[in-house]
Amino acid sequence: MIGVVKRNNVSLKIGIIGGGNVATHFFKSLGEIVVKQIFVRKKEENLHLPLSLLSESKDLRILDLAIIIIAVSDDQIINVMAKYHFDPDQTILHTSGSVEMDVIHQKHLKCGVLYPLMTLSKEDIIDYQQMPLLIEGSEESDLLLINQLAESISHHVTYFDSQDRKIIHLTAVIANNFTTSLLLDVEEILKKNQLDKFLLVPLMKETIRKVFDLGGIKSITGPAIRKDQKIIDVHLDLLSNYPEILDLYQFFTHRIQKI
Amino acid sequence: MIGVVKRNNVSLKIGIIGGGNVATHFFKSLGEIVVKQIFVRKKEENLHLPLSLLSESKDLRILDLAIIIIAVSDDQIINVMAKYHFDPDQTILHTSGSVEMDVIHQKHLKCGVLYPLMTLSKEDIIDYQQMPLLIEGSEESDLLLINQLAESISHHVTYFDSQDRKIIHLTAVIANNFTTSLLLDVEEILKKNQLDKFLLVPLMKETIRKVFDLGGIKSITGPAIRKDQKIIDVHLDLLSNYPEILDLYQFFTHRIQKI
Repeated sequence: MIGVVKRNNVSLKIGIIGGGNVATHFFKSLGEIVVKQIFVRKKEENLHLPLSLLSESKDLRILDLAIIIIAVSDDQIINVMAKYHFDPDQTILHTSGSVEMDVIHQKHLKCGVLYPLMTLSKEDIIDYQQMPLLIEGSEESDLLLINQLAESISHHVTYFDSQDRKIIHLTAVIANNFTTSLLLDVEEILKKNQLDKFLLVPLMKETIRKVFDLGGIKSITGPAIRKDQKIIDVHLDLLSNYPEILDLYQFFTHRIQKI
Repeated sequence: MIGVVKRNNVSLKIGIIGGGNVATHFFKSLGEIVVKQIFVRKKEENLHLPLSLLSESKDLRILDLAIIIIAVSDDQIINVMAKYHFDPDQTILHTSGSVEMDVIHQKHLKCGVLYPLMTLSKEDIIDYQQMPLLIEGSEESDLLLINQLAESISHHVTYFDSQDRKIIHLTAVIANNFTTSLLLDVEEILKKNQLDKFLLVPLMKETIRKVFDLGGIKSITGPAIRKDQKIIDVHLDLLSNYPEILDLYQFFTHRIQKI
């Protein structure tokens, strides 16, 4: 792999297809010196992006763009490959955790993947240098080019093939989406009791630190693992008005007691 | 409430009953100038604490201790109240999230609660000033004394009655223990596939930040909320060798889709 390339040394010219969350963050992380055009279906729906860069064209062959980043929803990637026209010399990437590189490769030889292992909503302020980027390329020359692009954004660039990328995406969904679902329950209970959810921030930061530093087995505490049935009964009683959270509490209590 | 009391201004003399995780952290956070004696069942089982402070005595009446912190497991608090002898002038606290102050009050008038809203294993290095302490007191004079003690440890001291403390403890169990259980699954999947779990650290830090800053509803992303059945099917297929995690995946996918 080549070394870290500073952004101001990147002479690459990039096009982005899409105006959603991931497209917006790739535009923000690369900047206007690198991103020459952003291809969207309707300009007027993408005014969070610079109007001067927006284009509704589907013909990218006449443009001097070395890399095209397809940052659309997973099931739209195949449609983009069917409807847009590319130059054979352009390297075409998608940004999905679960879609195989082959979806592009079937239509276009020079291709790859640039997957940001992060939850990205438009308004988030992300420290891009700390955001892991998982890359794949169809040929060594494509991979080197994608690596150069990725290292101009982040200090954490790693090669992942399509199969491993699917697995880490699965774990990201469990870790992020399911934890968020748990914290929705926490919010609901605290709100109904007019208690301040921010009291839990130090605990949650420590939870994450501990699991990664010590490992999950050493980190697990609380009434379930201690088999403290008195406390569990107190909690089940408190949850009598929340039947769904009560199910979830029992589900996890049983799971933890089987460890 | 009185202002923050610097530790070197605290002239309180404290005794701690117990040598476990919570007792050890209260000793560490208060230090030897404040903690005059630590009462344990067997000295030889508590050599992680200074031998000079350890005592097996159950008679605390002859000692000049203003506050006694009972830091034992929840179901042992009642036994401590039955077996130990206290001076009526001593203020006796427990440190539990789920036990009512009344368990002490039934036996001893001057009492209260000092509950650290944190996961505490002996080896953890905790920033005590950021650790929320939830306090309760049987009389205003006790509450003022407990507040003085608590503010010598942490900048985040809040009054909570026994009922509200039970509720926040319930949410701490959901947020900490159940998230840790999810991350155990993540560890298992990544380990079996020889992938590096530390790649998920930035995502998890952002997950916590986002839920508390934006709220859970605005933070929820991923295939379940998008109803992206193709990706869900990819994940169910990847989990075919993990029947329990597959159940959990379906459980949360259904929950999130009902939001």
